[in-house]
Amino acid sequence: MYAIVKKMRGPEAEISTVDVPKIKKNEVLVKVKAASICGTDVHLWNWNEWAQNRVRKIPLIFGHEFAGEVLEIDDDVTSVEEGDMVSAETHIVDGTCYQCQTDRMHVCQNMEILGVDRDGAFAEYVVLPERNAWKNDPNLDPAIASIQEPLGNAVQTILPKDHIEDVAGKNVAVLGCGPIGLMAIAVLKALGAAKIFATAGGLNKVRMELAKRMGADMILSASEEGKSIVKVIRDATDGNGVDAALEMSGSPVAVRQAFEMLTPGGRVSLLGILEKPMELDLNNAVVFKAATVYGITGRRMFQTWHQVKGLLSNPDFRNKIASIITHKIPMKDVAKGMGLINSKQAAKVVLEPRW
Amino acid sequence: MYAIVKKMRGPEAEISTVDVPKIKKNEVLVKVKAASICGTDVHLWNWNEWAQNRVRKIPLIFGHEFAGEVLEIDDDVTSVEEGDMVSAETHIVDGTCYQCQTDRMHVCQNMEILGVDRDGAFAEYVVLPERNAWKNDPNLDPAIASIQEPLGNAVQTILPKDHIEDVAGKNVAVLGCGPIGLMAIAVLKALGAAKIFATAGGLNKVRMELAKRMGADMILSASEEGKSIVKVIRDATDGNGVDAALEMSGSPVAVRQAFEMLTPGGRVSLLGILEKPMELDLNNAVVFKAATVYGITGRRMFQTWHQVKGLLSNPDFRNKIASIITHKIPMKDVAKGMGLINSKQAAKVVLEPRW
Amino acid sequence: MYAIVKKMRGPEAEISTVDVPKIKKNEVLVKVKAASICGTDVHLWNWNEWAQNRVRKIPLIFGHEFAGEVLEIDDDVTSVEEGDMVSAETHIVDGTCYQCQTDRMHVCQNMEILGVDRDGAFAEYVVLPERNAWKNDPNLDPAIASIQEPLGNAVQTILPKDHIEDVAGKNVAVLGCGPIGLMAIAVLKALGAAKIFATAGGLNKVRMELAKRMGADMILSASEEGKSIVKVIRDATDGNGVDAALEMSGSPVAVRQAFEMLTPGGRVSLLGILEKPMELDLNNAVVFKAATVYGITGRRMFQTWHQVKGLLSNPDFRNKIASIITHKIPMKDVAKGMGLINSKQAAKVVLEPRW
Amino acid sequence: MYAIVKKMRGPEAEISTVDVPKIKKNEVLVKVKAASICGTDVHLWNWNEWAQNRVRKIPLIFGHEFAGEVLEIDDDVTSVEEGDMVSAETHIVDGTCYQCQTDRMHVCQNMEILGVDRDGAFAEYVVLPERNAWKNDPNLDPAIASIQEPLGNAVQTILPKDHIEDVAGKNVAVLGCGPIGLMAIAVLKALGAAKIFATAGGLNKVRMELAKRMGADMILSASEEGKSIVKVIRDATDGNGVDAALEMSGSPVAVRQAFEMLTPGGRVSLLGILEKPMELDLNNAVVFKAATVYGITGRRMFQTWHQVKGLLSNPDFRNKIASIITHKIPMKDVAKGMGLINSKQAAKVVLEPRW
Repeated sequence: MYAIVKKMRGPEAEISTVDVPKIKKNEVLVKVKAASICGTDVHLWNWNEWAQNRVRKIPLIFGHEFAGEVLEIDDDVTSVEEGDMVSAETHIVDGTCYQCQTDRMHVCQNMEILGVDRDGAFAEYVVLPERNAWKNDPNLDPAIASIQEPLGNAVQTILPKDHIEDVAGKNVAVLGCGPIGLMAIAVLKALGAAKIFATAGGLNKVRMELAKRMGADMILSASEEGKSIVKVIRDATDGNGVDAALEMSGSPVAVRQAFEMLTPGGRVSLLGILEKPMELDLNNAVVFKAATVYGITGRRMFQTWHQVKGLLSNPDFRNKIASIITHKIPMKDVAKGMGLINSKQAAKVVLEPRW
Repeated sequence: MYAIVKKMRGPEAEISTVDVPKIKKNEVLVKVKAASICGTDVHLWNWNEWAQNRVRKIPLIFGHEFAGEVLEIDDDVTSVEEGDMVSAETHIVDGTCYQCQTDRMHVCQNMEILGVDRDGAFAEYVVLPERNAWKNDPNLDPAIASIQEPLGNAVQTILPKDHIEDVAGKNVAVLGCGPIGLMAIAVLKALGAAKIFATAGGLNKVRMELAKRMGADMILSASEEGKSIVKVIRDATDGNGVDAALEMSGSPVAVRQAFEMLTPGGRVSLLGILEKPMELDLNNAVVFKAATVYGITGRRMFQTWHQVKGLLSNPDFRNKIASIITHKIPMKDVAKGMGLINSKQAAKVVLEPRW
Repeated sequence: MYAIVKKMRGPEAEISTVDVPKIKKNEVLVKVKAASICGTDVHLWNWNEWAQNRVRKIPLIFGHEFAGEVLEIDDDVTSVEEGDMVSAETHIVDGTCYQCQTDRMHVCQNMEILGVDRDGAFAEYVVLPERNAWKNDPNLDPAIASIQEPLGNAVQTILPKDHIEDVAGKNVAVLGCGPIGLMAIAVLKALGAAKIFATAGGLNKVRMELAKRMGADMILSASEEGKSIVKVIRDATDGNGVDAALEMSGSPVAVRQAFEMLTPGGRVSLLGILEKPMELDLNNAVVFKAATVYGITGRRMFQTWHQVKGLLSNPDFRNKIASIITHKIPMKDVAKGMGLINSKQAAKVVLEPRW
Repeated sequence: MYAIVKKMRGPEAEISTVDVPKIKKNEVLVKVKAASICGTDVHLWNWNEWAQNRVRKIPLIFGHEFAGEVLEIDDDVTSVEEGDMVSAETHIVDGTCYQCQTDRMHVCQNMEILGVDRDGAFAEYVVLPERNAWKNDPNLDPAIASIQEPLGNAVQTILPKDHIEDVAGKNVAVLGCGPIGLMAIAVLKALGAAKIFATAGGLNKVRMELAKRMGADMILSASEEGKSIVKVIRDATDGNGVDAALEMSGSPVAVRQAFEMLTPGGRVSLLGILEKPMELDLNNAVVFKAATVYGITGRRMFQTWHQVKGLLSNPDFRNKIASIITHKIPMKDVAKGMGLINSKQAAKVVLEPRW
């Protein structure tokens, strides 16, 4: 089969022909119908410092956000059938560690990630553990189905636990308008947030227009409005500040702003990955403000998938999310897709199985 | 001033002229711009058994859902000014009992209710404690402003506590399509519920059409579909049943259906008042199902008001809620308003200060 | 091997010799070191109505609360080794249904129960799925280890969810002093409850003395104090009533008392199984009181096991719990054990593998 | 009356005679029976940078942790009577801001603090708003009653919200063994924590011995064990790390250790005040670990007071807490008390009304 394979520890990857993978116990073989490019895939392609430290398996077929059709199942598989349309929960967990036994398997102590620790979905076929195969509505567009995984991250950022202060009727800021930030805006709107503030690092027209379309009430450019962002948001919230701030940029400036714009007793979700340790005034940011801070990684398994399914059952929401996919290109043109993202001309790029 | 006064312990009430009430310490005087009829007002008007047992003060000006303009404030009042447009949190609490000290003043041990324990808002003027005056956006239509109080009940039914399983992407049933039930449907839709099922006691066209307009995905008539309601809903939810069932009818049949249609581990809110004790199979309804049941009375003070304010800031939601007001009539025609509700031709009736 | 086998659909059971069971995929074989008699076992022994309706498998080796040593494991088993001392989570779940995917596998839609739906632990050997084998501290007395499962029920009754109003410094009532009620008193004491009220159905000296030893501050006899129980408890709590009431008796009178003695906004856990549907005044019990009600069945998997392990690491607590075991007898004398429980002379009876 | 008055913006304070303060609307006059020295009082005495920036009112009678007898009440006061024994919730709130209206008045936007923004309790008499007077059991030793306020901080650190992951059966670390840290250890023990780890900055024998007495299972000296602390704790928790880490030292090293020793998905409470902004590796500390972080300031009003009351009703707990009071001296010897604390020879110092 064709696949995008990183054969050496260095930038980029090759379109190669490799054997179709074989299923083992409790696994299923899936024919890929659409795959989308995640920020992680860009790191792997660019072979940045994170990728150099993280990747252990070479050669590696990468890619993990996808949708496809089940072609073959192991004898033990009971919850998925041939012909089912599926996407993947990309976190493969042990099911037995302390975290898995206490309702937080998304931080399993022995986690493997599809397309990072084992071969992924930028290929004609991919193998998954049964437990990681999420059955899609057969009528759901595979391109949209492929981005349910990051949409789950957006939901997780907004609702990091089952019992959490609701955003209904509350003012919320989203700092960073990458694909997950954009999705978070759409989700916040769908969840009844009152005012939604979006901040974007630069003057990226594509993303700022999408932020508006997703439902942001006010879109602020960090490069233009800089330090005044906090004041603007505070003024627009009766002086109270936002009830929740979702940091999705990985910028230290945005992290600090998130805490500054927060109402006392409010909450901050940190999803963005920082380049390095940063200085933070914990007294004023967290302690005196009685702030609650949630670290966000992965998605609760599988509540977020059920929530995403429920939200996508609404056609308006589905169409909004679809509009985040700015490009659909053949999988063989992956280099072009990476370029579109690196140059910030794209929001979400979907690769179609054309080789 | 003119007022609707119950002068004797019996049905109906009189339009009378009485003295304008005087403010005491920490109180404000409000000129009524709009008042809406609550189910409680109908009970008082009809003088049913509940009313006979509950009312201690006669003569009584009743009515409590309203909006108006502050005309006068006591010297001690600091948070409200003359000219402010306000509505009332109708629960007047002591602020010092165990419940008030532990974040649940809506079940204060020494509660007084406006329009039940002290003179209310079916009058030209009404007096409120400062703490109970909720400042409205001056541009908010007084008719809509007057129904924020029951809208708060709808929010409370959906989100009975601050930390509660979210309805986002979940399937929810609303049993009973009275005004608060209709509001609950609109709120659920605004909060991203997946499928919303509404059940109504009879073939009330007005309410069933409003339920559809509010956003119900499926509207079931208890009189026609009877026992099959549970099966229909279960079939429409992959066999799982609903994640939350909101009982807003006060019918024993609906209470039982609420538990039957619930997914194991789900939650039921009970807002409807029953005529008398009812028989319930606690084993199957609650115990074996690991159900959580929330008794709903009043509204958390003042989270629900902030949530309602935030939700009403969305024009689409505001218009939906406005459409629940099926009739606006002069306050002097209160008897007609009561008749419209008793005959179930109306959803919400707003009384305007025309005498 | 020897085993206690119900061979016919009727009361009692036989001591028989049967083949040692064989392990299948992902299963382990355990040599039983101690097994305790659960109320469910008594129902099976007595062959009451519940048992007649519930049991599908005959012949059936019953018993499910136990501790033993792993003798053999399937090749696929990774988390347990031969020689490990284990107890069993007795709920065998599918892992793939809606409930299992959303952190409440204890109400799995396709649950099987050890000793009810498949052969259990009143035998020399028992087979378990790997996932259900809970590794004990090798130094833990098997008799105590065998009652961790009901102790988990007690914890679940007190903390039915991960995010729950704490009992620390709160007043709590336990209605019913059977083994799980007694355990609940000990757990409440260990969790810092302020005043603990225990009510017992009769004048059972064994249980009332154990209730005192477990840490109850006040022990009330339902037969003697009857209706005054609510008043006594209310008087002892500054008139507020209890913050939480744990119904563990299955008596309709106790269910009603639980709600009556509850402070407004408080919570009730229902663990006791009722003989039949009961009449309840939902208005005053639940709605007007803004009560939260939790149905309790099973134990969250596996948080409660971790909590039990943590609590048992305290020697004082462990000794208290040990004292609930009033009798240790040979397994062959199971009939005697059943008699002790039926006559209420025992709290917990442990069967030892002597045949 | 005698009082300890800071008359100038500089270190220390004077014993002076001043007028007995007069009560205003809704206020009560209290005769001080015991007052304890808080870290804040030491800052005010030492006139450190924080004090220089924070204090606006001079002359200032400081001190806020106390217990006393109500001598006089304003006509409007209803919940307290002359002769009542009271302590003070020291946060005086407006009751009308967004925070006060949403169940977090402990972060009121217009907070005043007793003994900082208005005259406090290091005096013969002190005036309080009625709402801030907490009625004590008349039999409670005034010295213990005076330290309920910091004990409330300890409870708040452990249970920062009403719905929080319980510590029952969990492993918890307390970083810092000052008075509130010591109290936290005692509270954790009373709440059924499994293993309690305490870390102390130096080799302070007084505090380390008290930590043991409070119930710490392992006491680690930061100066001696340094970097190995995290490893030691991890090894003692089956490699999982602690479920909750309570940072009570204000040391950047301890903050980092708190996150390092945390199990993925666990929680950190930050109560300690840092000298300045610190560098933190947010990726590994918070994001990838899915940590929840709570900023702790003040105490929820008035849940924590009820919880403290409930806990102190247990004689064993009360005696433990009493032992944290290492010194009782006359109020006129305040300079000596400050010296004892500055030299770390004392845990808690109580001042008695001897002049």
